[in-house]
Amino acid sequence: MKGARPHGPAPLVIIGGAEDKTGDCRVLREFVRLAGGARGKLAVMTVASEHASEIGAEYVRVFQRLGVKTVDPVEVTSRAEAASDGVLEKLGKATGVFFTGGNQLRITNLLGGTVIDQLLRRRQEDHKVVLGGTSAGAAMMSSTMIVGGASETTPRAGVVEVGPGMDFLRGVMIDQHFTRRGRAGRLLAALARYPHQLGIGIDEDTAMVVHDGTFRVIGSGAVTVFDLGQATLNNVLELKGDAHLALCGARLHILPDGFGFDLHNRVPLPAGERPRSP
Amino acid sequence: MKGARPHGPAPLVIIGGAEDKTGDCRVLREFVRLAGGARGKLAVMTVASEHASEIGAEYVRVFQRLGVKTVDPVEVTSRAEAASDGVLEKLGKATGVFFTGGNQLRITNLLGGTVIDQLLRRRQEDHKVVLGGTSAGAAMMSSTMIVGGASETTPRAGVVEVGPGMDFLRGVMIDQHFTRRGRAGRLLAALARYPHQLGIGIDEDTAMVVHDGTFRVIGSGAVTVFDLGQATLNNVLELKGDAHLALCGARLHILPDGFGFDLHNRVPLPAGERPRSP
Repeated sequence: MKGARPHGPAPLVIIGGAEDKTGDCRVLREFVRLAGGARGKLAVMTVASEHASEIGAEYVRVFQRLGVKTVDPVEVTSRAEAASDGVLEKLGKATGVFFTGGNQLRITNLLGGTVIDQLLRRRQEDHKVVLGGTSAGAAMMSSTMIVGGASETTPRAGVVEVGPGMDFLRGVMIDQHFTRRGRAGRLLAALARYPHQLGIGIDEDTAMVVHDGTFRVIGSGAVTVFDLGQATLNNVLELKGDAHLALCGARLHILPDGFGFDLHNRVPLPAGERPRSP
Repeated sequence: MKGARPHGPAPLVIIGGAEDKTGDCRVLREFVRLAGGARGKLAVMTVASEHASEIGAEYVRVFQRLGVKTVDPVEVTSRAEAASDGVLEKLGKATGVFFTGGNQLRITNLLGGTVIDQLLRRRQEDHKVVLGGTSAGAAMMSSTMIVGGASETTPRAGVVEVGPGMDFLRGVMIDQHFTRRGRAGRLLAALARYPHQLGIGIDEDTAMVVHDGTFRVIGSGAVTVFDLGQATLNNVLELKGDAHLALCGARLHILPDGFGFDLHNRVPLPAGERPRSP
């Protein structure tokens, strides 16, 4: 990657799904830029998908169209395969690894705890590889992952399932296809039990680009942040059956393109005040 | 209505649409109770609907099943009809008037400024008639009414149209079918221009019962309150084209059955602290 002296972990590009692949491709173009541009070496991880070949070929075409010379699809269909020399070689030299959509449980189930997992984490922390992911590839980024749940529901007990994610970004729970699929209810239901985490809903064709404890937003939608840190009432511990969550005093931030957020201090950053460029 | 000494305006029962009409009918039963119970005199205002006869007959059946002896459907298809003796007589003696769903613009267009409008307002303020409304009949209750807009959208310029409502409840903008139709975006878009108002989203089969400057929630969903009074950033005045709203520091309350809200002080009331019963 460019930059005289990279510092800290490399950026994460976390996309809410359905990003533009035929037009200006602003979101994917930003991933490419951060991952080294035309000279970057990209790997497309299709592990989340049951249609790995098709989806891999699609992203290879898109990244090539965006000027990248070296793009390799990486198919992993078993934990054994995740440890194969071919896979490790591609990921060991990649400057950008992109996780496609599919089912986030396939990512944790096939990659969690493998040498790939360790390799990617170490290289990301050493600022050697930018990780990107869309849809399922976004959901898995956080420590606690939203596995699934109901859409267009008000927050109730039982409307959302969470589990351990791949832990590339701590302190948040991420949901994707956020507005389009009406997922505020399930994200709030998940968050009500863990108000020390931030709830982050990413719209389609929109990404949060995380670097240095902040993120900024790029794309045609918005990133919604729920902060329950100062909530005055939250009855989640008393809920029984399908009773309805009560929640008072939550904070809500809606951050479109250009806006940012300080993850440590839980403060939005106006569009003018971009975090330092990686 | 019951009660030794009624004080102030009568209650408003504002329903988010699709309330239960065949089971326990908790929401409609509460309207009936407030409007005088079995001995109340109900009028069903079908003005919002283009299928007035059918919808009127349906509500008459439901209210009769709930024990009310006197229920009259009131059809108004023109402003002249809104001033007819028959209509004024029914509304002049009603202890409860229920506005059905349909199109809220039909309510303002056919009733706004008529003698019905004045009659209902005066009788409601004198604690003589409880007003109820569902869906379009809920939207029209506020001073500024949400006329229409997009569903499942993030807040942008142009996604919502507002206009003057029937003004029975001041200081709020009401949206209905709230969670089911993914209307948080359009309500926030409307509210961003008028942060002195509260945004209130009512779920289906759920009502806010307003009395004495507070409301409480009844039903199977929730009432969502957006309070932008302390928002730290809101770029609505700079938005051009279909640009995306940025909004930081909004407050969010989700209030299920039994919870309440103090509209003057903008403070949620836990389920134990119900406002005084009317």
